[in-house]
Amino acid sequence: MIPLGGLGEFGMNCMALRWQDDIIVIDAGLMFPEEELLGVDIVVPDISYLIENRSKVRAILLTHGHEDHIGGLPWILSELNVPVYGTEFTLAYVEGKLEEHRLLDNADLIEMLPGKRFTLGPFSVMPIRVTHSLVDCVALAIHTPVGVVLHTGDFKVDLSPPDGKPFDLHAFAELGKQGVLALLQDSTNVDRPGYTPSERAVRPRLDEIFSQTKKKLFFSCFSSSIHRIRLAMELAHKHGRKVAIIGRSLDNSTEIAQDLGYLDLPQGLIISPGQIRDMPAEKLCIMISGTQGEPMSALSRAAVNNHKFAKIDAGDTVLLSSRVIPGNEKGIYRMIDHLERRDAKVIHDDGTAGLIHVSGHGSQEELRLMINLVRPKYFIPVHGDYRHLKRHAELAGSMGVVEKVVLLEDGDILELDKNNATKNGKVTTGRVCIDSGGSIDVVEDVVIRDRQHLSEDGIVLPIIAINKRTGLVENTPEIVMRGFAIQDEKLVTESRNIVQRTLDNSSPEEKADYAIIKEKIRNDLKRYIQKSTSRRPLIMPVILEI
Amino acid sequence: MIPLGGLGEFGMNCMALRWQDDIIVIDAGLMFPEEELLGVDIVVPDISYLIENRSKVRAILLTHGHEDHIGGLPWILSELNVPVYGTEFTLAYVEGKLEEHRLLDNADLIEMLPGKRFTLGPFSVMPIRVTHSLVDCVALAIHTPVGVVLHTGDFKVDLSPPDGKPFDLHAFAELGKQGVLALLQDSTNVDRPGYTPSERAVRPRLDEIFSQTKKKLFFSCFSSSIHRIRLAMELAHKHGRKVAIIGRSLDNSTEIAQDLGYLDLPQGLIISPGQIRDMPAEKLCIMISGTQGEPMSALSRAAVNNHKFAKIDAGDTVLLSSRVIPGNEKGIYRMIDHLERRDAKVIHDDGTAGLIHVSGHGSQEELRLMINLVRPKYFIPVHGDYRHLKRHAELAGSMGVVEKVVLLEDGDILELDKNNATKNGKVTTGRVCIDSGGSIDVVEDVVIRDRQHLSEDGIVLPIIAINKRTGLVENTPEIVMRGFAIQDEKLVTESRNIVQRTLDNSSPEEKADYAIIKEKIRNDLKRYIQKSTSRRPLIMPVILEI
Repeated sequence: MIPLGGLGEFGMNCMALRWQDDIIVIDAGLMFPEEELLGVDIVVPDISYLIENRSKVRAILLTHGHEDHIGGLPWILSELNVPVYGTEFTLAYVEGKLEEHRLLDNADLIEMLPGKRFTLGPFSVMPIRVTHSLVDCVALAIHTPVGVVLHTGDFKVDLSPPDGKPFDLHAFAELGKQGVLALLQDSTNVDRPGYTPSERAVRPRLDEIFSQTKKKLFFSCFSSSIHRIRLAMELAHKHGRKVAIIGRSLDNSTEIAQDLGYLDLPQGLIISPGQIRDMPAEKLCIMISGTQGEPMSALSRAAVNNHKFAKIDAGDTVLLSSRVIPGNEKGIYRMIDHLERRDAKVIHDDGTAGLIHVSGHGSQEELRLMINLVRPKYFIPVHGDYRHLKRHAELAGSMGVVEKVVLLEDGDILELDKNNATKNGKVTTGRVCIDSGGSIDVVEDVVIRDRQHLSEDGIVLPIIAINKRTGLVENTPEIVMRGFAIQDEKLVTESRNIVQRTLDNSSPEEKADYAIIKEKIRNDLKRYIQKSTSRRPLIMPVILEI
Repeated sequence: MIPLGGLGEFGMNCMALRWQDDIIVIDAGLMFPEEELLGVDIVVPDISYLIENRSKVRAILLTHGHEDHIGGLPWILSELNVPVYGTEFTLAYVEGKLEEHRLLDNADLIEMLPGKRFTLGPFSVMPIRVTHSLVDCVALAIHTPVGVVLHTGDFKVDLSPPDGKPFDLHAFAELGKQGVLALLQDSTNVDRPGYTPSERAVRPRLDEIFSQTKKKLFFSCFSSSIHRIRLAMELAHKHGRKVAIIGRSLDNSTEIAQDLGYLDLPQGLIISPGQIRDMPAEKLCIMISGTQGEPMSALSRAAVNNHKFAKIDAGDTVLLSSRVIPGNEKGIYRMIDHLERRDAKVIHDDGTAGLIHVSGHGSQEELRLMINLVRPKYFIPVHGDYRHLKRHAELAGSMGVVEKVVLLEDGDILELDKNNATKNGKVTTGRVCIDSGGSIDVVEDVVIRDRQHLSEDGIVLPIIAINKRTGLVENTPEIVMRGFAIQDEKLVTESRNIVQRTLDNSSPEEKADYAIIKEKIRNDLKRYIQKSTSRRPLIMPVILEI
């Protein structure tokens, strides 16, 4: 067993299992970069180990469709084209993603069904239905020559899932009876005591918010929260509001959910964004993406009055049915301040808003429940920073059910047989930074590239000095290029003009919001440089406040 | 009344009151920059308005000694040398700060006593004792020709403050009886229902942690939390542990608190950091600065085993008796992960640790209590982002006690007379970024300078490519300079060497922690460039992960 990602960080989950000359991989996730990694869009696990053992890799198995489990696929498949197994809904997400990167035609996507066992070389895989914030999620029981390795994927034990597809307690109980060699369990919420509430638990408070809202209701949630999207639409229908959907990711999710029967919408409920202006405010629910204050998201742009269709007026309500992902606080609060300045009522998860969001991950009692049910010989915490893994190991160790708890980190090799679990060496692992380019609303020919190509493609730093007092740009933008074009004066001059034009076309509010203005500059400059040089340098706008 | 800072952001609190040709200023704070402002150390309010009216400014009055209330003083006094009034403890902090910037000799610091009224031109000022996380804090009742303007400063209503100096409820009641024209009240905790617990409330849980700790106990709290420092020392004494103090700010605070009688320490309790290695682990309490994971703080360096005296061993306990300041999550959690890897037990405010920290700011009921006590004609929320001010205005407005609530932002001019409160125009305000240079442990000739001098001093970008897999630096560091020295090859070459040397002298753990390595590079390069050119460019290390 060789974890390649997700054991020592949140995100980029990836776990390899090897038996002699056969390797299978569980999940292929991405993570979003830390602030230190300027100009990087996403981070994926280093898969050197898989590439070195290219001929042995039989398949990638996906537990569910969240980005931290599937987001690294385009990059991995472009290095290593192997069959990908997932449930119907998960594969629908994967298809869209691969299509965007023009990798779909050559991909081999194979559907797996919960409860239906299949064979991959020496492994026999049984997907087991679990509940989570997304639909169609599975744990994987992998029967190996030395015993069953059970990977929970992401889960909570939701006893009343809105889609009526229950958590398969019986399958886990059955496995526990037969004996499980190793349990790999999601550590995300190991810090939370008790049980995580059911997804249904948010309904009463959301219903109340719908009934109390007098003007437009802007409803924002994670675009993959199919349960939440369905609930919002049900409530909109109940309260006589039409629904407009704004934001590409939300659009995409809704479409997939509808196609696969997860959304059964009344005729005429959905209107197009263009119809918003023809409707009375009190008849509107606008589903909009951008709960995390992402600079170019629809909601962030609406907050500074820069969205064509989403106009936020005094008295409107903006509901963020989501949590604050650590690291995003400043962006989110900045967006909320902009919304409050427009006299919108903002309801977000600040501890006073009531139950407007629940987690998709099991809390301590659910983690204990699963360990009790499965009674594994070895327990290995997955998905988390080091401190979560450690705490999860302590939790499992204190139960007296497990023979041995093993604290693994990315790259550790764990050798398992019927009677032993021994760490033995390390493989190369790490984080690979990818600059995928393009904002979510711009469909362009996105090329994934490794940051190792930096020396080929170079770096461009547009440097702008903004006078905070006046909001004016103080000088002609400075352009610094390295590893790119040795003093190509025309390119520098034209880049300068591009940046100047972007600044001229931005509102004072946008210019006051550095995250937004940087993203705009980056996008515009990237488009120009790619077109005129066919190169894709790293572009890192620098704003100096003077 | 003209707010110059703190109404629209947390920090850089500064409020001007003017009557004809006399101006007094309440507080002169700084704020710490947002991540977008790379290379900037602190941010202070733009005081153009005061500079334009230089001859009218009579004094700066300080409510208490926190950085967001006094941290802008060196910069403001260097532009505008006026008398500064503060309580004994507040002025002790101010003295240290001015001495560091070589401004103390020319400063006019005047002590004010709670309950003792004094006159400044047409204003008569009565400081009133309030309780807060720091000691010797006051509200200011300012008697003006049109009525009393009452500024709460930062406060909570702590009915059992550890220093036995009570919140002066009677003075506020008396003012309420006589009539208050305008109340300016701290909005920080307007989102929290109920009352904030007393500072004493943390004692039981901290006592328990002291009694359960088997090896070394590292105790970290905000360096200005005098109550907390005192409690930690009392508990160390009770549990038979000697106390070593590590970190300049903590050292400084402890010394001041001791001088002014806030700490009465048993003989022999304090040992020097050098004595740590001679003591058994179970006899040690190490007070250490760095609760926010600041890259160069003592605790961050100890966490990566890079502190001369603070060695963290398996089984040691690290207690963060503090809150997570929004925006610092990543740095803090990274530090905690490093500590956990050393098998230290980390106790921090994650919701499961028990009551190890309380806020210094009043919650909703305390805000209501003050409004009820004071019954002002006009209510003006201060200290907060826009959404806090707005919510505070709503809270006050819903009570039926106040005649009018006025939502002011930085720069708004509010004209007040006995019967009216009218917004009338704006003055210039904004944020001035200051690059003060030097890490907290390096005492150097710190020169405060306005970022407007950028064109004089230029910008230097050391660009380093680190291979995440190996932790090795992939190429000779690239140095980009602008507005500084037109291709001064010697300077570039030598800077490159400096950066290389810094990298060579850093441990792999430090190199893996970009915040630390950037700070080290910045410090080393700054020292070299200042010495060899007498210029102080903006230095912004860029790390590319490959």
